[in-house]
Amino acid sequence: MLNLVRRLKSFFTIYTEKERSLSRAVKTIVGHAPINIHVYRLSVIHSSAAKENNNGFKESNERLEYLGDAVLGMIVAEYLFNKYPFKDEGFLTEIRSRIVNRESLNDLARKLGIGEIIEYEGGGRNGVGHKSIYGDTLEALIGAVYLDRGYRFCRKFVMNKLMKNHFDIQHIVRNNPNYKSKVIEWAQKENRDIRFEITELNQDSFPRKFEALVMVDEEPFGKGFGLSKKKAEQDAAQKTCEMLNLP
Amino acid sequence: MLNLVRRLKSFFTIYTEKERSLSRAVKTIVGHAPINIHVYRLSVIHSSAAKENNNGFKESNERLEYLGDAVLGMIVAEYLFNKYPFKDEGFLTEIRSRIVNRESLNDLARKLGIGEIIEYEGGGRNGVGHKSIYGDTLEALIGAVYLDRGYRFCRKFVMNKLMKNHFDIQHIVRNNPNYKSKVIEWAQKENRDIRFEITELNQDSFPRKFEALVMVDEEPFGKGFGLSKKKAEQDAAQKTCEMLNLP
Repeated sequence: MLNLVRRLKSFFTIYTEKERSLSRAVKTIVGHAPINIHVYRLSVIHSSAAKENNNGFKESNERLEYLGDAVLGMIVAEYLFNKYPFKDEGFLTEIRSRIVNRESLNDLARKLGIGEIIEYEGGGRNGVGHKSIYGDTLEALIGAVYLDRGYRFCRKFVMNKLMKNHFDIQHIVRNNPNYKSKVIEWAQKENRDIRFEITELNQDSFPRKFEALVMVDEEPFGKGFGLSKKKAEQDAAQKTCEMLNLP
Repeated sequence: MLNLVRRLKSFFTIYTEKERSLSRAVKTIVGHAPINIHVYRLSVIHSSAAKENNNGFKESNERLEYLGDAVLGMIVAEYLFNKYPFKDEGFLTEIRSRIVNRESLNDLARKLGIGEIIEYEGGGRNGVGHKSIYGDTLEALIGAVYLDRGYRFCRKFVMNKLMKNHFDIQHIVRNNPNYKSKVIEWAQKENRDIRFEITELNQDSFPRKFEALVMVDEEPFGKGFGLSKKKAEQDAAQKTCEMLNLP
């Protein structure tokens, strides 16, 4: 009943040009037009383009991103729980983190064309140059879908439109091991001190580039590079695994 | 309809003595008797008491704990999102972590009498001596309620039976600041290197006790103690905050 009222209300709402175009984009991505366009409007506003509301609070998509992150985490957790009835929680946690990590969400958001609907100001680190803006907005969009349509609908959207179309779970399970946890586990087992030294290379250049060095008992092991600290660490950890002949 | 079939089925299921007593306990804690007793049975089996099933997989409550953790995270995320419409995601994340952290879940589980229904073998670190066993089982129980009754029911259970009865949100918001993040934030702002040195004190004694030392640019600052690494770090961070006059 409440839903019917909301639908009727949305039917008589007069959209601005911007809202009309956003509504079309949501329909393409989510599969259904918005009931409450306002939550979707908020979901695409990056903090750089946020304006203060009447309460002096800068409204951007960051709160929705926080909500969407939790919603997505739960949907993927349940999916893997059901898909792998005989795998332990360590496996489930690891595979989930490979699915919902920054990088994989960024890639997915790019494929979905999220870049077209993000509102942001300026470039550089806070604009689309800042890589995680896509993935963050996708999370915010998931939060918006949840608020607009509820858990079941949102789960269907995530499962059918995102997971099934864009993730090859078998591939994820087989590949891309987490080298960093592997070397940390090894160090703990062998009772060795381990730490990752991160250096930012030529700090003025863009995109930023990082070097990571694995130190075991203060002795240098693998060295790695990447466009993010995490990637550099993974690279360094992978090289350390090779040096140590870890499987 | 499906639910009706499940209820009828549960009505005609003959419980063992153990199941009858568990069913009563679930009714007390959750407010309703189980429909599918088996998920609740699994939710109280600590890994120390797990037995291999036909597939050679040791079934304990760890998988349910993984699921319950995600469900709880989402319910609390949504609750705080709605309760604090003008607080940013940093605040929401911080308050959520204070609510769902190991310690607070352990306390809550103890209050609920979860200890009475946990099945475990032996004592020491893997028995009830291992502190997080209560909180872990509570998370597994939340996972079981979710599987047995669905999201809406589980949300009501968490909100009405756990949050409203046992958490004073105002108190949580006002108190117990995360000193560790505070000093790390300070160090990042001031461009200082910071790390926490953890030492386990007299390793053979039980319970284990830890010492933490905050090192800023390799100079010792606050020193703290605790029964867990985390507590020792918090203690050391709090002392460092005092030394640095951080608010």
